[in-house]
Amino acid sequence: MKFTYSNPTVIHFGQGMISAIAKAIDPAKKVLVIYGGGSIKSNGVYDQVAAALSGHKWMEFSGVEPNPTVETLDQAVALIRKEGLDYILAVGGGSVIDGSKYVAAAACYEGDGWDILLGKHRVKQALPLGAVLTLPATGSESNGGAVITRKSTREKLFFSSNAVFPRFAVLDPDVIKSLPERQVANGLVDAFVHVCEQYLTYPVQGWVQDGFAETLLRNLVNLALQFKQRDNDVWRANFMWTANQALNGLIGAGVPQDWATHMIGHEITAAYGIDHARTLAIVLPSLLRNQLENKKVKLAQMGRAVFDLAPDVGLAQRTVDAIENLFRSLGVPVRLSEAGVSGPEAPELIAAGIEKHGMAKLGEKSAITPAVVRDIVAAAA
Amino acid sequence: MKFTYSNPTVIHFGQGMISAIAKAIDPAKKVLVIYGGGSIKSNGVYDQVAAALSGHKWMEFSGVEPNPTVETLDQAVALIRKEGLDYILAVGGGSVIDGSKYVAAAACYEGDGWDILLGKHRVKQALPLGAVLTLPATGSESNGGAVITRKSTREKLFFSSNAVFPRFAVLDPDVIKSLPERQVANGLVDAFVHVCEQYLTYPVQGWVQDGFAETLLRNLVNLALQFKQRDNDVWRANFMWTANQALNGLIGAGVPQDWATHMIGHEITAAYGIDHARTLAIVLPSLLRNQLENKKVKLAQMGRAVFDLAPDVGLAQRTVDAIENLFRSLGVPVRLSEAGVSGPEAPELIAAGIEKHGMAKLGEKSAITPAVVRDIVAAAA
Repeated sequence: MKFTYSNPTVIHFGQGMISAIAKAIDPAKKVLVIYGGGSIKSNGVYDQVAAALSGHKWMEFSGVEPNPTVETLDQAVALIRKEGLDYILAVGGGSVIDGSKYVAAAACYEGDGWDILLGKHRVKQALPLGAVLTLPATGSESNGGAVITRKSTREKLFFSSNAVFPRFAVLDPDVIKSLPERQVANGLVDAFVHVCEQYLTYPVQGWVQDGFAETLLRNLVNLALQFKQRDNDVWRANFMWTANQALNGLIGAGVPQDWATHMIGHEITAAYGIDHARTLAIVLPSLLRNQLENKKVKLAQMGRAVFDLAPDVGLAQRTVDAIENLFRSLGVPVRLSEAGVSGPEAPELIAAGIEKHGMAKLGEKSAITPAVVRDIVAAAA
Repeated sequence: MKFTYSNPTVIHFGQGMISAIAKAIDPAKKVLVIYGGGSIKSNGVYDQVAAALSGHKWMEFSGVEPNPTVETLDQAVALIRKEGLDYILAVGGGSVIDGSKYVAAAACYEGDGWDILLGKHRVKQALPLGAVLTLPATGSESNGGAVITRKSTREKLFFSSNAVFPRFAVLDPDVIKSLPERQVANGLVDAFVHVCEQYLTYPVQGWVQDGFAETLLRNLVNLALQFKQRDNDVWRANFMWTANQALNGLIGAGVPQDWATHMIGHEITAAYGIDHARTLAIVLPSLLRNQLENKKVKLAQMGRAVFDLAPDVGLAQRTVDAIENLFRSLGVPVRLSEAGVSGPEAPELIAAGIEKHGMAKLGEKSAITPAVVRDIVAAAA
């Protein structure tokens, strides 16, 4: 086991903690508050942010979409340059925070921002960034990764850099109160799949990583079981902290990781506009069945530790069924057809996208070629 | 649940990672390497450190004791001032790293360094500090706490500050190969009690914190079960990473904490010179029996989740017995008499020390007064 790990983001967790941003941002900084639609104006978050920033000079940029696009984000970059702003406060879910990471990096780069996604420009410098999380799901509030879409070419790509780790993140569980059910369900699925990407590979005797991952998975199963009774502080706090820990680098340090489900899911979102989490719920069970032989030991371990399944014949397969049933129980589609995509072209289209974006061998054993992607997508029809 | 948490220390984990310090320390820095006795010279760690620092100006300061004393450490502070050194590399276990934190803070303070321990000086500034861990146990390599002893007055006190968080920590599991059995056993006990201090209180529905803590406790139980067969990479790596996670702030964020066992243990070490971990093994079972009513719900949860005990009558009590048996299985004394302390004066002496140092009400419910301390120590005779 060998790794280098750190996570410098300061977490301010708890009810009322949005006020902490007053002290978290140097008062000399000129802040750009970036957000999405208007939901933060109706749920009180905008007002709390504005109150906390009353001692700062600040401007705002709204309209960042789910699956944030460079077309939109480059307007924020232009605003930063025009106004001489030097700190970004992302107020939103994963899309807004991911988008703000792109803005923070692109503002310090002279060339075309899309170079960052293509890997032509490696990000070493970015504007400092803070985050107020409004939707637990992606873990973006305390990691260095971001997924950005180019609308004009229907591409959805990933970049990461230590330079775009948020300096701080506010996690106030009360923000969940006003979320639509669909977004909460999506967030649970997203966090669950994040853990699976770092856990459902092959065993390497990482006892801390496995035990922490199983804790998070069990938490998410319990949260799903209580989904209908979720209107309480305990549910909200445990969802928010679990989703954060699912993708802050800790459980993945020193162990093999997969991420093929995400890469395939990104292509599906880019092609068909399906919600990110829903693409994961569609791909993961199909991928696990396709890769059962490579993953059966960890699947069996998960079945016992997370779903309390009996250690009988077919345990790995039954674990996949349990995962699929978990997603179904949240009302999330687990087939392309259930998400409104029909017709025979999807497998070829998605496999071609994977190939075009240079992902010839995905998965922890590099076993998932574009041909395998085609099979996985076909089986998820 | 409400908390602010961060852990900025960069962890370099794995065999051969001592070489990472070459890049981790700015080559313009003049480094003081602080270590203890000569063990790092015989086990190869010193040579690896020297090789990694070949591009730096550096000096060394050795002779930091177990239970490091201000009397010794103030000599390192004087050397730093005389030579104009501006970076500290601690190479050792908890004592050396704790001592180096004191040196880093005292070097930036004009007054008497002991003021830091008395709380008269709050540490806001310190020299930057890195750590090469040679004994997994205290977690000091990635937290902001330190315990320092004043020999002249037989006092052992604690301070903490964000300013003394190590910038990086090298965790190379191979260093365990050369450790005496007694130190390894002590390390297991120390890590186990660190988790207990943050977990064995009362339930607050912190699912992440509880699950992570139970993972670490189960790991330590498994490591103890394999203690005789510990000469392998898997055992060493899991011990090292588990002990680190046991006290880096994560499992204690947002949940009640106790720490009375540590405070009482510090007094016992100051008075009788018993190894830190051994004082914990002596105090914890007695304290848990004394506080059984306050802690019974979490003790029962631990019994089921960590020791696989049946949920029958007396589960909390049986969990305490299991903890005591775990310590015994490692050859660690669990009574003062087994550690060579006899005679009737210990309870009064330790209670008086607790009172003198301003700890009138210890424990998560402030239920442990000096009178209760006396009972706990008496019952551990």
